[in-house]
Amino acid sequence: MRFGTLVAMNMQHPFDQAVALAPTAEGVYTGATSPAFANMVGPFGGVTTAVALNAVLQHPALLGEPVALTVNFCAALADGTFGATAKPVRTNRSTQHWVVELSQAGEVVMTATAMTAARRETWGVDDEPMPAVPTPHAVPDPNHTPQVEWVRRYQMRFIEGALPADWDGGGVHSQTRLWMRESAPRPLDLCGLAALADVFFPRIWLRRATRVPVGTVSMTVYFHAGSAQLAELGHGWVLGQARAQAFRNGFFDQTAQLWSEGGHLLANSHQVVYYKA
Amino acid sequence: MRFGTLVAMNMQHPFDQAVALAPTAEGVYTGATSPAFANMVGPFGGVTTAVALNAVLQHPALLGEPVALTVNFCAALADGTFGATAKPVRTNRSTQHWVVELSQAGEVVMTATAMTAARRETWGVDDEPMPAVPTPHAVPDPNHTPQVEWVRRYQMRFIEGALPADWDGGGVHSQTRLWMRESAPRPLDLCGLAALADVFFPRIWLRRATRVPVGTVSMTVYFHAGSAQLAELGHGWVLGQARAQAFRNGFFDQTAQLWSEGGHLLANSHQVVYYKA
Repeated sequence: MRFGTLVAMNMQHPFDQAVALAPTAEGVYTGATSPAFANMVGPFGGVTTAVALNAVLQHPALLGEPVALTVNFCAALADGTFGATAKPVRTNRSTQHWVVELSQAGEVVMTATAMTAARRETWGVDDEPMPAVPTPHAVPDPNHTPQVEWVRRYQMRFIEGALPADWDGGGVHSQTRLWMRESAPRPLDLCGLAALADVFFPRIWLRRATRVPVGTVSMTVYFHAGSAQLAELGHGWVLGQARAQAFRNGFFDQTAQLWSEGGHLLANSHQVVYYKA
Repeated sequence: MRFGTLVAMNMQHPFDQAVALAPTAEGVYTGATSPAFANMVGPFGGVTTAVALNAVLQHPALLGEPVALTVNFCAALADGTFGATAKPVRTNRSTQHWVVELSQAGEVVMTATAMTAARRETWGVDDEPMPAVPTPHAVPDPNHTPQVEWVRRYQMRFIEGALPADWDGGGVHSQTRLWMRESAPRPLDLCGLAALADVFFPRIWLRRATRVPVGTVSMTVYFHAGSAQLAELGHGWVLGQARAQAFRNGFFDQTAQLWSEGGHLLANSHQVVYYKA
């Protein structure tokens, strides 16, 4: 490896390093987990989600931009390399449907589907207004020490529903509102937004003020903003809101919204999470 | 065909006919669209969703019951037969991940993923209480004539956000609440619940009081109830609530909840819908 390449790699943003995929054939890639995004077991799910999206975005046959993305976490990724495939299974005049798979040692670790489409100007309106909240600069950084590495990659300023200070079983609701963005400056893009959709800590920790083992099993992101709109936001803050609707039989759901600081709904997202209780 | 078979087929509930799949190999099936569920173009999407789920439920290797189901409508189904495949791509100790595909004439018309799991007793709570609404018996049937055949298969009693009486462009919100169940008595089951998640008419018709061409492109259902709980409800009414969060660049999202008459959240669901405007 030449010195010039090394410098370029070292200067790359940790998120870009983590979602990088090297194509070995059309729609076939290899990637590797990044220690910078290590979670309790395997990497932060938001980054794996972004990797699945990146496999679509890098495909030479791509039509348009993502509208819907669903990822299924089939198993925890082991630290190290993984394979990824993205296949456009149906291309229409203005929409395209994708099937994506991530694998390690011959075993599927993630399945995903995506729908991309040409964005065009239409009538539009936001029906979920951004809640009235203090500006990011009026909210302090939390003073707890991250327990896992990936949390250091994000600034998170909690307005409501922060991690419980006392794990005393006294939770009463499951709603969190926070300002968030990557810690190291990086312009917001589609992969970055997909990852932000998974930044929220598990709803059950808030609802029960009890730390139980959890793991997301499926997540969907609907993109209401395209890459051009995101680029205008630069390294801007994103307001995230998340809450659960039901905890039942070892699984709870999470419904989430992501707004720009200017109040535009950039994406909404849903996930279902395994819990042990 | 013998007379006995004919009688049996005629006696079958139209929904069961519509979602029936004949296996030709493990995880490989053939089915056919049903005129009873005809929509403007192709069949009612809820039935196609139920077909995808049925391909999983009929698989001999099935583990547990559905927790998450995502379907992607890649193209309108043509009237007639279709092929379906369901593959368990990863089986863990208590969860299983599925990839499903529906095709016609060698072209993919639907992709789907599902996660099934053994339901077990745990701590649980509903965080999205059923809204206070009149009982189904206190709400009249609508007096408009269905424009498409599938609508006749469902009783729908609108509490809020019915189809606009005047298509005058005067819509102000996107929320519908209605009591719903199949018109011909049939005990609620997992496939029936998946179909109910798609009964809501397009949110943009309500929001703009304008009838524009639409088509669901992706839908996700999270199941909070299992088959045993559903069986207890029999041919009961289900309260449906749906609203949009954003209409932008030719796509809007819908977020929906489905409660039993007793107030249990049976499922929540999300979809993203193409619109022409």
